Amino acid sequence: MTAFDQAMARAQREVEAALDRLLPKPEGPEGRLFEAMRYAVFAGGKRFRPFLVCESARLFAVANEAALRVAAAVECVHTYSLVHDDLPCMDDDDLRRGQPTVHRKFDEATAVLAGDALLTFAFELLGEPETHERARVRIELVRRLAAAAGGQGMVGGQMIDLASEGKALDISTITRLQRLKTGALIAFSCEAGAVLGRASDEALHALRAYAHDMGLAFQIADDLLDAEGDPERLGKATAKDAAAGKATFVSILGIERARAQARMLSDQAIQHLDLFDGKADLLREAARFVITRDN
Amino acid sequence: MTAFDQAMARAQREVEAALDRLLPKPEGPEGRLFEAMRYAVFAGGKRFRPFLVCESARLFAVANEAALRVAAAVECVHTYSLVHDDLPCMDDDDLRRGQPTVHRKFDEATAVLAGDALLTFAFELLGEPETHERARVRIELVRRLAAAAGGQGMVGGQMIDLASEGKALDISTITRLQRLKTGALIAFSCEAGAVLGRASDEALHALRAYAHDMGLAFQIADDLLDAEGDPERLGKATAKDAAAGKATFVSILGIERARAQARMLSDQAIQHLDLFDGKADLLREAARFVITRDN
Repeated sequence: MTAFDQAMARAQREVEAALDRLLPKPEGPEGRLFEAMRYAVFAGGKRFRPFLVCESARLFAVANEAALRVAAAVECVHTYSLVHDDLPCMDDDDLRRGQPTVHRKFDEATAVLAGDALLTFAFELLGEPETHERARVRIELVRRLAAAAGGQGMVGGQMIDLASEGKALDISTITRLQRLKTGALIAFSCEAGAVLGRASDEALHALRAYAHDMGLAFQIADDLLDAEGDPERLGKATAKDAAAGKATFVSILGIERARAQARMLSDQAIQHLDLFDGKADLLREAARFVITRDN
Repeated sequence: MTAFDQAMARAQREVEAALDRLLPKPEGPEGRLFEAMRYAVFAGGKRFRPFLVCESARLFAVANEAALRVAAAVECVHTYSLVHDDLPCMDDDDLRRGQPTVHRKFDEATAVLAGDALLTFAFELLGEPETHERARVRIELVRRLAAAAGGQGMVGGQMIDLASEGKALDISTITRLQRLKTGALIAFSCEAGAVLGRASDEALHALRAYAHDMGLAFQIADDLLDAEGDPERLGKATAKDAAAGKATFVSILGIERARAQARMLSDQAIQHLDLFDGKADLLREAARFVITRDN
């Protein structure tokens, strides 16, 4: 196991323990809601965003507990977006990571509410004093997460995605779509450590630039996996984008150019980390990982 | 026009102007999302929660702009809950205030996303320095709004409501359901002024107790309107609860006892305001208004 694999496994284990501790326990007449929230959150996943929060926090010697609470908040936002995305009126997916999606396991209304509650819970977590002793740091996290997740971030990207089905997109529109839909939350994950560690603007901007390039490389790799990946390994259907007539980096650039573009972005992401020396080696590995992963 | 009617009209006018100024403008490829958010927000309504924020803020001489930003955030949360509640998988309503609901006017996916974006936007608004110069005040508002709106507040109440269809509820379960589903956000609206004004714990608790009783009176009056109201005046179908086999205060207590209970709670709410003298007269009027309104 490489140091990177070990760090990914540790972040996964630690954020799952934190989520188990922090999420409401399923009891009372609304218990079904908490069950559905937990079902969605504990359905597996690489916990890549929590890893990014923990590793960016490590650059500034942030307390582990603070980083894990922010990592848990990000994972709640990511999970809510998947739950709503899977709904029949959106992507209409029956499986996620090989398991029934929340609306298949429970029902549609519960899936809508569980998503709503997970999103709200993320802000509750950030607001509590345990996340950071300084109110100024906590409110900065709230602002940045809301901006990354909302209509001018992730949800805006989902809207463009929906509105684009069957349309021919150019490369700049699809880049903007992905920057909003997946890039904004990845960027927040990388910035969060700098905010928690009250780092310099220079450090914050470097992490933001890193996240921008790495996030786009991540998305191109995702499109490549959808076009070429093994459905069994992925735990979900592939070639869905082509079937839905969705423009992707692969449909526009072709497989070879898309792969070269992902590689170029990964290299560029790594260069943004120069000011952090060896401390950022695992973030460098992460930029390599996103373009070589097979699920 | 009474002083109360004038204050309601002013809060309505001012919060609508604030929302128009603050909500993103419909432009760009995600413009449809912002259109749907604005359609939902500007569909009318009494703006009762914004009125409560403004009047509770006035007790502590809070700047109008600060109160209006918090009022706008509360109205965004209230609106998102209506948009998701109206969805086919939830209450499946075609009309709200006499107009097509968001998923009828746009489509279901857009309604899900517009709700998500409105909820997120509320936290973005609270996070910005324009809401209050002190980070500590802003983060306190975030915490309280998240707690009021989430799984242990409004969304939890919606879950109990869904799970209760066709079940015989006792009065204590239905009281808890309503305290979460509608009471929590009304309570936040009344507390917000005290938080903005950095009021004493005594003042905060008095407003909380007032909101608790007034909110329950509000809900019983709502059940009475559903059982007896004029569909034309209400702009929506009536007798829906009975048709859906939902237990309400009216189905459990009967019309006469429900009306007496609402009156008792309204009187009790008013008594909690004793420490504020004449400054709280409009809040006293509000407690009378909720049980005498006809829509």
